[in-house]
This record gives sequence, C-alpha cells and structure tokens, in this order.
Amino acid sequence: MSFNQGTTEGWTLRQAVDACVRASIPWIGVWRHKVAELGTAHARALIDDAGLRVSSLLRAGFFPYATEDERRVRRDDNRRAVEEAAELGAEVLVLVCGPAAGRDLPAARAMVDEGLAELVPYAREHGVKLGIEPLHPMMAAERSVVVTLGQANAMAKEHPPEDVGVIVDVYHVWWDPELDRQVRRAAGRVLGFHVSDWLVPTRDVLAGRGVMGDGVIDLRSIRGTVERAGYDGPIEVEILNLKLWEGDGADLLPHLARRYLEHV
Amino acid sequence: MSFNQGTTEGWTLRQAVDACVRASIPWIGVWRHKVAELGTAHARALIDDAGLRVSSLLRAGFFPYATEDERRVRRDDNRRAVEEAAELGAEVLVLVCGPAAGRDLPAARAMVDEGLAELVPYAREHGVKLGIEPLHPMMAAERSVVVTLGQANAMAKEHPPEDVGVIVDVYHVWWDPELDRQVRRAAGRVLGFHVSDWLVPTRDVLAGRGVMGDGVIDLRSIRGTVERAGYDGPIEVEILNLKLWEGDGADLLPHLARRYLEHV
Repeated sequence: MSFNQGTTEGWTLRQAVDACVRASIPWIGVWRHKVAELGTAHARALIDDAGLRVSSLLRAGFFPYATEDERRVRRDDNRRAVEEAAELGAEVLVLVCGPAAGRDLPAARAMVDEGLAELVPYAREHGVKLGIEPLHPMMAAERSVVVTLGQANAMAKEHPPEDVGVIVDVYHVWWDPELDRQVRRAAGRVLGFHVSDWLVPTRDVLAGRGVMGDGVIDLRSIRGTVERAGYDGPIEVEILNLKLWEGDGADLLPHLARRYLEHV
Repeated sequence: MSFNQGTTEGWTLRQAVDACVRASIPWIGVWRHKVAELGTAHARALIDDAGLRVSSLLRAGFFPYATEDERRVRRDDNRRAVEEAAELGAEVLVLVCGPAAGRDLPAARAMVDEGLAELVPYAREHGVKLGIEPLHPMMAAERSVVVTLGQANAMAKEHPPEDVGVIVDVYHVWWDPELDRQVRRAAGRVLGFHVSDWLVPTRDVLAGRGVMGDGVIDLRSIRGTVERAGYDGPIEVEILNLKLWEGDGADLLPHLARRYLEHV
C-alpha cells in the first residue's frame, strides 16, 4: 500500500510522512505543491529519513493550450516536474492531460500527443517514467481530455514502454466495459494502480470519492485484472473527498490501511 | 426540434403540450409518469388535437435485477411501456438500462442483454422500436450499466435494425474519443438525437445539464456526424436541470428554440 497525500489535502508533506510511518505504510504518493513548500531536496531528505519510497509524483501534463505563451509555460513547468521527480527518486511522474481550451476535443487531444512527444526525451534523460492517467469522463471539461484507458494505451504505445505507461485508477475507469481488455493491452506499461471507491450518491464531481468498501467498485476484481497484467508495484490509496479534507484525520491512515486489507 | 418534457419536470403534459404549440415546436418527447397522470388514451388525444407528434416515450429498461420477483416486475413494466408507446404513436421507446444490483457489472450487463432479448418480440408485435440510450459513465452506479455508444451499438446489433437502435444524447457521449467512429457504426440505427450542454463547473451529477450554448459541447460538430450517419428525425432538447425545474418557465420554450437555432 502507498498513501497518496492528495487524500489529506490540508496536511503538509511532513504530516503525511509521519502518519505513514506511524501506520507502517511503506510508500507515499506526493503532490508537487506540497513538495514545493519544503523544497525538493529537503522533501527528499524527509522521505528518505523516514524510510519511505515515493510511488509517484503528481502531477504534470495539462498539455492543451490556447496560445503559444501558454504552451511554453506548460512545457517549462512539465520539465520542472520531471526534474523534481528525478530529485525525489519517484517511480513515476503522473500526467493529467488537461482540458481543451475551447470546444474542440480532437484538437486538444492532438496537443496532448504533441506535448507528450516533446516531454518524453527530457524525461528519459532524467530517468523518469511518465504515467498517463485517464480521468473519469465527467472530468473531461475541467481536467483531462484523456478519459479512457484505451485512449491512454494508444497514446503510450507511440513511445517505448520504458519511457511511457499508464496509471489505472479504479475511480476513473471502473465503469468502462472495455476495462478488462484495455488492462490486458496495457501489460508491461502499468506504472501505477490507484484505489478509492464510487459512492452512491456522488455529491461532488471533483472531490466526492469514497473510502474502499463504502461504494460500488469491485476492487478485488479490478486488482486481479491489473495483477494478471503483470503489475506488482505499490497500490496507492488516493481519496479526494471534501469531507476527508475537513476532518483532522488523526486515525485516518490506520482506518485506510484496514479498509485496504479488507477490500482491495 | 422536439421538446423533451423532462426539461420541465414540474409541468403536466398539458402544460408542456400548450407550451410547444405556443412556441411552434412540432414534436414532443413525453415521460411515462406524466402520461400516467392523464391516462394514455387521453394523453394521445391531447397531443393529437394539438397537432404534435411524439418523438419518444421515456422510459423503460432498468433490466438488472436482484431477485426473480424484481425481474418479473420489471419485465411486466417494460411490456406496459411498449403498450403505452404503441397507444401514443411514439416513434421510439427509450431504454435506460439500469444500474447493477451489486458490484458485478458484467453480470448486470448480461441481464440487460437478456432482458432486451425478451422485450424485442413484444415490441415488434406492437410496432414499437426500442432505442438503447447509453448514459454518461458518471451515472453507471445509479442509472445505467450501458455507458458508451460502442456498448449500445454492440447490444443493438444482436437484433434487426427495424426493432432495436440507439439514442445519441450529446450530454452522455460528448467526451468519448470513439464518438465519431461509433456514430458511423450506428448508421441506420440512430433512433433519436438529444441535445443539451455540459456546464463548467457541473454542480449536480444527475440534473446539472445546461442550455445549448452555455457549455462546452461542440453541438454543431456532433449534429453533423449524426446527420452524416443518416439521421434526419427530430432533435430533442432535453435539459435535466434543478434550476430549470424550479423556474416558472413561461419564456423557456421560446428561449430554448432560439438557442437551438443558434447552437445546434
């Protein structure tokens, strides 16, 4: 199990690291804005000293642009993200591909292909793998024009498997009738597996995820499919939820670890 | 243009019919619970007398079941829906396929195939076409395990095109990277085309749709794709939105008609 610190948006990196250590969770998924509060070198030392490893750094991407200036700003930021991932010794840099600037989805998707192709050599030089994370289609307008694992697979396959792979997050892909087939197709390219649950009803489009076992996702089944595709890395618990963010979270990680054992 | 009365959930069928006549909208999409308030024969007379035609009757389906009793109840209700569609002279009966009873999506999808196969001969006898409407994946847990046009196409193709087709609702499918290909594949089977818009941000998973032009969907482009696939029937404006439901809606239909001309 890895703990993705997006689950506790109100915490500093130090708080998240300490909570992982107390709950005997060996991996952490870290967010760039939390790393930035400390500086990358300091963050690395903190994580190393705690004996943790970084399963992923979140996040780069957001490739579609409205202007050439915007394009340059994003390219530069993506390069910094690669440098940060290398400095942190992160297993993978997660790419959230961004929304379209206007209504033209095919054009935005072409910009993602183009931006990715531009980033790959830089990431390779730095020894950083890029993981394309398809987001749920309900986030197409605000977060990502890449919304299915099939689409992420097709994009990844334009590049060598040692450079570019995919992130399978159950929350984003559980509904997909193509899921089994696309996970098999991703064999050798799965760079991360994220878990949470889909609540009924879902009150918030962007931060309404549930703790494993509280929703309707068949987590065990999807985990089996992902493992049969050869994935044996850490499984990140990432639960973006307004209520969790408001809680103080003192007992949160032991609770999540229990739910992980029971349901994943 | 057809007006889907789900847009004005607070109105009776009579109010919706009157508003269509005043706004010179020639078609109406009607909901079963509104028809039931009048009785089917009375509803038919009301619609005929107003000179309107019924583009679709909503809705039947909800095939997955937890018990044999539930299965029978749904089968009987679906047969009644077919009878109502025939009595109303509706062009098509819309099928919303229902959520899974538990966590097992493949099993639920098999129940949809089975329930559909059982309903088709009955619908054929009554001269009613069945239109499978894939819903947005964010509705997979509560409304429909059929969430992509590709999936709806595959289901429909098990049956003759004169019996079973698909409904393309932009709100449910706009995000899909397979959309163009699947609409082409649906040629000859498109039984309805529904429009609204995707708002940013979207505040409600089930009833947060926007009026055409207020969101990010490339309506003209999708309409072009659907028409190139041979669809030349009415285009239903269906905007399920809590705010619209709360308004009095006196000027709503002329407003929607203007937006339709400007954006669809």
